[in-house]
Amino acid sequence: MTDYTALDALVADRLETWTDELAQYCRFRSEEDDAEALLGAADWTAERLRALGADVDIVELEGAPPLVVGEIGEGPILNLVQHYDVQPSVPLDLWTTPPYEPDVRDGRLFARGATDNKGELLPRIWAVEAYLEAIGPLPCRVRFLVEGEEESGSHHLDELLDRRPDLRKAEGALIEGGGLDMTGRPVIAGGGRGMLAVELTVRTLAHDAHSSASMVLPNAAVRMARALGTMFDDRGLPAIEGLDAGALPPTAAQLAVVDAEPPEQLDDLRREFEVERFLGGRDGIEALRAMTFEPTLNIQGLWSGYTGPGDNTIVPAEAHARLDIRLVPEQDPDVVRVALRRHLDRHGFADVELADLATAYRAYWTPADHPIMDAAALVSEAVAGKPAIRGVAFPGTVPMWQVCGRDGVPQTTLGAGRDDCRAHAPDENIRIEDLATATLITARFFDAFAALPRGS
Amino acid sequence: MTDYTALDALVADRLETWTDELAQYCRFRSEEDDAEALLGAADWTAERLRALGADVDIVELEGAPPLVVGEIGEGPILNLVQHYDVQPSVPLDLWTTPPYEPDVRDGRLFARGATDNKGELLPRIWAVEAYLEAIGPLPCRVRFLVEGEEESGSHHLDELLDRRPDLRKAEGALIEGGGLDMTGRPVIAGGGRGMLAVELTVRTLAHDAHSSASMVLPNAAVRMARALGTMFDDRGLPAIEGLDAGALPPTAAQLAVVDAEPPEQLDDLRREFEVERFLGGRDGIEALRAMTFEPTLNIQGLWSGYTGPGDNTIVPAEAHARLDIRLVPEQDPDVVRVALRRHLDRHGFADVELADLATAYRAYWTPADHPIMDAAALVSEAVAGKPAIRGVAFPGTVPMWQVCGRDGVPQTTLGAGRDDCRAHAPDENIRIEDLATATLITARFFDAFAALPRGS
Repeated sequence: MTDYTALDALVADRLETWTDELAQYCRFRSEEDDAEALLGAADWTAERLRALGADVDIVELEGAPPLVVGEIGEGPILNLVQHYDVQPSVPLDLWTTPPYEPDVRDGRLFARGATDNKGELLPRIWAVEAYLEAIGPLPCRVRFLVEGEEESGSHHLDELLDRRPDLRKAEGALIEGGGLDMTGRPVIAGGGRGMLAVELTVRTLAHDAHSSASMVLPNAAVRMARALGTMFDDRGLPAIEGLDAGALPPTAAQLAVVDAEPPEQLDDLRREFEVERFLGGRDGIEALRAMTFEPTLNIQGLWSGYTGPGDNTIVPAEAHARLDIRLVPEQDPDVVRVALRRHLDRHGFADVELADLATAYRAYWTPADHPIMDAAALVSEAVAGKPAIRGVAFPGTVPMWQVCGRDGVPQTTLGAGRDDCRAHAPDENIRIEDLATATLITARFFDAFAALPRGS
Repeated sequence: MTDYTALDALVADRLETWTDELAQYCRFRSEEDDAEALLGAADWTAERLRALGADVDIVELEGAPPLVVGEIGEGPILNLVQHYDVQPSVPLDLWTTPPYEPDVRDGRLFARGATDNKGELLPRIWAVEAYLEAIGPLPCRVRFLVEGEEESGSHHLDELLDRRPDLRKAEGALIEGGGLDMTGRPVIAGGGRGMLAVELTVRTLAHDAHSSASMVLPNAAVRMARALGTMFDDRGLPAIEGLDAGALPPTAAQLAVVDAEPPEQLDDLRREFEVERFLGGRDGIEALRAMTFEPTLNIQGLWSGYTGPGDNTIVPAEAHARLDIRLVPEQDPDVVRVALRRHLDRHGFADVELADLATAYRAYWTPADHPIMDAAALVSEAVAGKPAIRGVAFPGTVPMWQVCGRDGVPQTTLGAGRDDCRAHAPDENIRIEDLATATLITARFFDAFAALPRGS
């Protein structure tokens, strides 16, 4: 058993320097629309990996932010799937301090990217640095795969990896982050969902009309509202035949894991969003199972006609809606798209056009009882001092199908993000002590991962 | 019979000067949000009426643009109900020349307000000027009532008139404008619709949520789409019980007038908006009757969640829709609002809030066979040289209930606006020759109006 005393001391000693480094990294406004900042963040990432002693390669593709690859150590290969891009920071007025001027207060660092994913990537780099200095050579080959398009759909990740297919070969992988619940218990999951994001458009007139003719002219907003209305039932739940096409029924083992999740998370969710009752009155095990095993259908945005101040009496000529559909194994986005099209046609909405947004990829889950999950749980429990919560999959979407799915590379989550870190939201933050926790867990995981039994 | 030779010559002679004057008037950006420009346009209007020789009074009310009143002549009183405010000019990029830099080309003046209503008000002032110079004293008392809030709902018009209740006393009234069809036939109608404009809002969450929880968290966009969906039937027509509460069934005389309208206007409408088929397959007499006698229900705008570029996987916490409901006699907006509320409640949408926008007033129609309608038709035919088209009411909304409705003052339309004048749209314009036509028709109408038989 490795002695981590020196490593623990080093992490404690270096935490302030590292926090400054994270603040520096978070100054890049690496949002989808800012090519210069994306390149700046990619260069910074590559430079940081070089400083670590890693072999760095930049995989490039016309029209895509580069994939930064850094490899270090010898032994079984562990892919760390990360990203240097961030979610848009709008609405800016909801931030206490500006998103790209990192601020430390109340023991936390506040900035866009503080948790997702710069504050999850850096602890993994620090874990390597600390391991090398405090313990010695790494017991495995750690490979950082850092893309720049995760928040906008990982649209080119498959094609970037196709340029270096060897990068998919690995003995295991860590998903971009992982977390602690609000009581400090580690949460370990075997994957996330896939996704299909689409935009619906309907055009009923050559241009907007004066609404005095609304008794004869078709209204695009009415048409869209009625089309969307058919896609959900009275409870507000999806009502599209074939939305679950290809979904594997949960196994007894999976159900056992989900049923054992602490139900308090549902109370937390209700409290956070001030919701008295979940859709269809779902609660307890039923709600937990739905959140893990059901594909979703969500209207993320909807607009038509005049939306400015006052009123403007027009019949809108166009209406738009964006939907995200989260997929579970083994659903194929192409098949689900066909089901959606068929639903619209059968309900008399052949005139509603369907176009893909950037995201369309499959889900990939590693079984909850896989040894890599046990390894992640054990090291997390050792550092956090509390029993881990095991989950089948977390409800968000991560591009692991592209990296691990085809070859069945086992994966797990690991880290110290929490529900109040406000990923994707204003005032995104990370507890500085949790940066140390994530670093300590990751460094220990290198040993646990290297020690996993492997077939010949 | 008055000889109009000198008047015709004067109008022809002065048309260029008057066109310049209209251009000057159209330079005021008298939109709802521009209090300074509204006051500027009000002052200009008052000054112009004084120059005409009218007695001018400014009726003021805290929080409302002033009502400019100008009275001139002796005899039966004719109220001219006009406005100096204009529709917003957005989207600016669709204008060939800027909306507040009037431009003359192809025999037309292009500017916001060129037709609605500055280009309809000024010909009425010019008609007085021409009559006084070319013929002599006016045969009636012409009273200009020029408000500054017509385009945003005439919200304070009733209250302004309550300050000078004598202003409602009149023997007749002209609605703000009137028109010629595209073949040059005058179109005469007895009124317009009333309106109730409302905003629907639904809130399902304290704030937007990550859409990974969409299988349990209520989505405001779904809720709004389903609520709106219940308000229309499969044909896209209103399906609210009580929407027609209080609507008088059309009389045989009214039906005869509407059934005699030229059906080509329906082809024009289909062509203009590139629509193959009207709602529910309506056509011919059925469509004409619907456009006159049915109250409308129109979604003018709809928005929820993320509507920017790309996608953003949130469950929207709020959704909004704006509706305009055009009323027919004797509907009461308060009663219709109750029907709408009841519809939402009965369909399980008690959580959808209903708030008034600025517009809520009744319709008022003068019978199609009233002598004032005959007078308008006769003078219009004399000037235009083509038979008039008689209508019961035009489908737009005008605040005549406030001015004439309570006392049953008869009213009609009169003027030279056309369907391609693009009122409320980019490139609003008026044919310069039509400015002369409107002036000539109005001047002759003063005589016809004065000569109408009146009870003791």
